[in-house]
Amino acid sequence: MDFEPYIRDIQDFPKPGVVFKDITPLLKKPEVLQKACDTLCDFVDGHKVDKVVGVDSRGFIFAPLIASKLKAGFVPVRKKGKLPYDTISESYELEYGVDILEIHTDSIQKGEKVLVHDDVLATGGTASAVCKLVEKLGGEVVQCNFLIELTFLNGASKLNGYQIKALLEY
Amino acid sequence: MDFEPYIRDIQDFPKPGVVFKDITPLLKKPEVLQKACDTLCDFVDGHKVDKVVGVDSRGFIFAPLIASKLKAGFVPVRKKGKLPYDTISESYELEYGVDILEIHTDSIQKGEKVLVHDDVLATGGTASAVCKLVEKLGGEVVQCNFLIELTFLNGASKLNGYQIKALLEY
Repeated sequence: MDFEPYIRDIQDFPKPGVVFKDITPLLKKPEVLQKACDTLCDFVDGHKVDKVVGVDSRGFIFAPLIASKLKAGFVPVRKKGKLPYDTISESYELEYGVDILEIHTDSIQKGEKVLVHDDVLATGGTASAVCKLVEKLGGEVVQCNFLIELTFLNGASKLNGYQIKALLEY
Repeated sequence: MDFEPYIRDIQDFPKPGVVFKDITPLLKKPEVLQKACDTLCDFVDGHKVDKVVGVDSRGFIFAPLIASKLKAGFVPVRKKGKLPYDTISESYELEYGVDILEIHTDSIQKGEKVLVHDDVLATGGTASAVCKLVEKLGGEVVQCNFLIELTFLNGASKLNGYQIKALLEY
């Protein structure tokens, strides 16, 4: 299926000069939502997955869908201070300043196979930090998958050594 | 299934005196995640649902799962400024001040049957605002469902006239 007709370009969002890829047209069409989930699961190609990690907040949309289909558990990664139980954290650089991501210490067991999912791969800072969190807990990242990869931002270079998949590339 | 063993009480989160209901133990167990989704879908009891609206960000976890199982579309409601396309908004009162929720104007068609989902029903302010957004777009709210209803906060009184369902009541 060609998903591109269901991704809408929004000029100057969230700030001037940026073209935002709006995924909501894809989400609201039942058959496209389903097919997108199926394709993300197909990327895993039969590999065992114990946990699917989704990044707050748009990563929360597909990560539980993928987890459900692969019969895996879902684990949220959130910004600092949002997760209520014991956490470990990892910081990553933004254009200006740094941000901090957290994961619950009991969310992944040593040796578990983990799929990392987010909606968009941009500079790779977020996904790279998530992979580090997974590995700090002893998990093994089997793949990072995304709805959209913005290849011109070269995020893949920050995810060297990890398998990367995306529904759409720009 | 009894879901209570998979909900963890966190004392004094996010602030002193509050006992937070942590749903992450439920999310990380594949069979419990699946059963929770199935039960939320069973609440709908065969009624037609065109769209499932989920509230940012923990409502994003189950709303797409429910949508997928019911063969409906998923529609996000987010805090002001987060949705990129044309929106309508609705404000609701917090303990101190107000907050504003938004929905895309093209997310729901007139006459569509809508299920509203969030993780927790507390004071009902959020869910009530979401119902108003759905109705402003001409949608019909067929049910509001939640993982958890904190009955002592009496949120149901703000959702008078809507069918309310929850996996767990406290």
